Amino acid sequence: MPDPVETTSPPWVIAVDCSTTAAKAVVVDAAGAVVASAASPLTTSTPAPGFHEQDATAWFEATAAAVRSAVGALGDADRARIGAMAVTHQRESFVLLDDDGAPLRPAILWVDSRAAEQIARIGSRPLPDGRSVHEVSGKPPDTTPAIYKLAWLAEHEPGVVARAAHLADVQAYLALRLAGRLATSHASADTLGLFDLAHLTWSPALLSAAGLRADERPAMSANAAVSTTLRDARPRAGLGLPELVAAGEVIADLRPDVAAALGLPRPVPLVAGIGDGQSAGIALGVAEPGVAYLNLGTSMVCGVEVAEYRTSPAYRTLAGTRPGTFVLETVLNAAAYVADWVTTFAGLDHQTLTARATAIAPGAEGLLVLPYWNAAQTPHWDPLARGAVVGWHGRHTTAHLYRAVLEGVAFELRLQLDLLERDTGARVGELRAVGGGARSPLWAQVVADVTGRTVRVCADGEVSAAGAAIQAQARLRTGAVTGASRFVTEGRDVTPDADARAAYDPLFAAYRTLYPALRATFALAAPTAPSA
Amino acid sequence: MPDPVETTSPPWVIAVDCSTTAAKAVVVDAAGAVVASAASPLTTSTPAPGFHEQDATAWFEATAAAVRSAVGALGDADRARIGAMAVTHQRESFVLLDDDGAPLRPAILWVDSRAAEQIARIGSRPLPDGRSVHEVSGKPPDTTPAIYKLAWLAEHEPGVVARAAHLADVQAYLALRLAGRLATSHASADTLGLFDLAHLTWSPALLSAAGLRADERPAMSANAAVSTTLRDARPRAGLGLPELVAAGEVIADLRPDVAAALGLPRPVPLVAGIGDGQSAGIALGVAEPGVAYLNLGTSMVCGVEVAEYRTSPAYRTLAGTRPGTFVLETVLNAAAYVADWVTTFAGLDHQTLTARATAIAPGAEGLLVLPYWNAAQTPHWDPLARGAVVGWHGRHTTAHLYRAVLEGVAFELRLQLDLLERDTGARVGELRAVGGGARSPLWAQVVADVTGRTVRVCADGEVSAAGAAIQAQARLRTGAVTGASRFVTEGRDVTPDADARAAYDPLFAAYRTLYPALRATFALAAPTAPSA
Repeated sequence: MPDPVETTSPPWVIAVDCSTTAAKAVVVDAAGAVVASAASPLTTSTPAPGFHEQDATAWFEATAAAVRSAVGALGDADRARIGAMAVTHQRESFVLLDDDGAPLRPAILWVDSRAAEQIARIGSRPLPDGRSVHEVSGKPPDTTPAIYKLAWLAEHEPGVVARAAHLADVQAYLALRLAGRLATSHASADTLGLFDLAHLTWSPALLSAAGLRADERPAMSANAAVSTTLRDARPRAGLGLPELVAAGEVIADLRPDVAAALGLPRPVPLVAGIGDGQSAGIALGVAEPGVAYLNLGTSMVCGVEVAEYRTSPAYRTLAGTRPGTFVLETVLNAAAYVADWVTTFAGLDHQTLTARATAIAPGAEGLLVLPYWNAAQTPHWDPLARGAVVGWHGRHTTAHLYRAVLEGVAFELRLQLDLLERDTGARVGELRAVGGGARSPLWAQVVADVTGRTVRVCADGEVSAAGAAIQAQARLRTGAVTGASRFVTEGRDVTPDADARAAYDPLFAAYRTLYPALRATFALAAPTAPSA
Repeated sequence: MPDPVETTSPPWVIAVDCSTTAAKAVVVDAAGAVVASAASPLTTSTPAPGFHEQDATAWFEATAAAVRSAVGALGDADRARIGAMAVTHQRESFVLLDDDGAPLRPAILWVDSRAAEQIARIGSRPLPDGRSVHEVSGKPPDTTPAIYKLAWLAEHEPGVVARAAHLADVQAYLALRLAGRLATSHASADTLGLFDLAHLTWSPALLSAAGLRADERPAMSANAAVSTTLRDARPRAGLGLPELVAAGEVIADLRPDVAAALGLPRPVPLVAGIGDGQSAGIALGVAEPGVAYLNLGTSMVCGVEVAEYRTSPAYRTLAGTRPGTFVLETVLNAAAYVADWVTTFAGLDHQTLTARATAIAPGAEGLLVLPYWNAAQTPHWDPLARGAVVGWHGRHTTAHLYRAVLEGVAFELRLQLDLLERDTGARVGELRAVGGGARSPLWAQVVADVTGRTVRVCADGEVSAAGAAIQAQARLRTGAVTGASRFVTEGRDVTPDADARAAYDPLFAAYRTLYPALRATFALAAPTAPSA
């Protein structure tokens, strides 16, 4: 495919982050600064407990609305400087399409937990070559990968699966609608759990494990520059999968009608972005030695980049930000979620609880929190695990609970980092932190003190989109991503306090015993019916 | 000693309960009804964290004030009908007296936790005959028995101990002041932990374990009817211990000057009462087969009466309500204490939390509470144990916590009763319940549903004093206690609901695992310095 980018193009770009809650568009100038931005919300429906779905057409409509709005804020001269677009997005969510590219049913999201039975069954069963789903896909058996939800659909909605012509992740669906080509990057596709990650190809064995078969024909394309046929007349022999494009390469130019509708003077190239977690890693400089990205948001995600494929329960393995790299991510589904929950539980706001919790000494007077409000992910992967608060006595207040939650999440991060370092042999010296939790000076200090690492609290804003913008701009220049966004990584360094760190050490020793101690109790206390 | 009671005496009595918070006096008529009552508060000082002390002279002054006030409410004819007095009291508290019967230092209370080191050391060391403190005294090593606090005094205040002429429990001190004789009952003395319970004698081996030696001379008496000498001129060879009088027998007549000061027309006999827990048992009919008394107050205490001496970590063994009987008591130091704590923690009152908690199904949506806010007593006896709340998810509210606390205390009671029944071979079919927790219809139902026993919610009021009144009246009649107080045991029967009971069974299986699972974590998380 010819590179449609002219070297004389003015190097502004549009970056889109189509997340779970909104599609966000930012226009970034040649220096990397945001010159315009807009967002359009996305709604999630919950048709049954644990079911989380979205209308995939809304992914495109919200994206278009956000881009139109951001571009609309620019003058004509500035619009003409826009040279490329790139998309990052919520990972693991997917949609089934018919022959015309229309959704056959609502998209099923990463957070959807309907497939507990399939996870237990398929996740633990060896594939025909003897390897496990985890070894091939890089993904430990867990709620989020699409493979288990596809297996659920094959069992519960076989008619829909039989009529499905194509499977699409969020980037592939947007690429089809924006540029007429059903294509995505390795680092978007792999989160579905259907990908042979070591070889960067779709895995027939994983598809088969989900009760599906891949079609051998080329993927769908409605873009004349890419394919001459919109539809293949032969009967399908299985599910069509998106074409794969290396991150940072061009998928196709935008469709002329779409470019016009978005307010762009010409159909700029759509550069292949990657999933939102790794995309944030680009902006935060995860490729630098000793650096990990830390998203301390509703969930906590921490990632490092490595040069070889490896798997462990201590992390999930993802395609990296550049070819030949991989990202190892630790995950805790409930982090700021639990701190937010304390505000509701206690009927007090974050400001009040933070002020009171700051006055309490490290250790919260003996209160330990195991923050598994939404089950356990790395390294335990236990869907039956729940939160535990241990050490209560009569002097404890809701402020103690709040502080102990911040500390518990930090203990979990220390546990995760210890296992990650032991596995890779590489020290993580600096955490580049974003997310609502990192904005709390108390929490950032607790994380530094508990983990013994410097926490760089990076700039707020659209960090994943900043990663996509860096990829689009690299394509317009040399093609190679050269470093983090200085607009993101500029920030405050929070360093560990020696006394606090010493106070936390024995408590961490106690924290480490909590999950092994309670595992059997969680199993006994679990309701027999699946929980929401 | 001649029985000074004339059979023509009008059968009204005065019962005193000298508890931790107040001395309470009730005048009870021939039918067992309360005709007058009064209370006088007692204050506790806390000179250091974990230290709890009272001025023993205040025990007498508050008792005298309460009796004076209750008697003062009667007309002359009714005062003349009063034929006896009996005392029940806080257990395990003690005072050291000089040769004149004056306190040498403040009394140390049952709740005082200063002697943690002595408990660990002396409680686990065999006595010279190879038996343990527990086997001889009936008391598992724990905070409450006086023996460990006496050892603490011998180590930290040797001068005071050297000057001490006499040791007194609450009844002995009051008997000295009221009737001029330092004497107490077996079922008051034994709670000090210095008593050979199987033989109902003071134990030189236990005194020696505390670093003390008993004097061999007769105990102190200032009552001419009992002894001709107030003081013995010979130098003392050790600590004088109270004389022992069987429960329900007469210690001595009141001193004439005291009787006059109390407003009594004549010096009535002081009948030996017993400690408040077993005294409540008398009023509640613990001697009936299949009946246990349950005090669901700040602490939870449950007791059954047996005909043979036995010991187990599952209970503490006490001298019984009648000669030849023993009471086996289970103990949880924090019961309603934890429910009260939730009101402070949540900033909501019992009424609001109860209304919300009643609307939540049994099991509190998966939340399990281990109610060891004040360490673990029967059957674990672990001073490092603390509260644990396990199973948290995002839908939980403070009302769930409140319900789970009520359920956790009930699970603990079920655990205790199961062990008690296994040990004795006797089924407990009915719980006769008193205390603030039993007044909650929700809690009473939860206890019935979790334990599968009928809970008779007995009348509120001075239940321990009612037991003392029954003893005093029995002395005025045949001498034998014949049954419970019908004024106390009249009440509401709460029976188990079959569906709720079935719902609790699997949760109880999970509850049973909590303490064994967390024991090591508690030890790791315990502060190195002793806690308050």
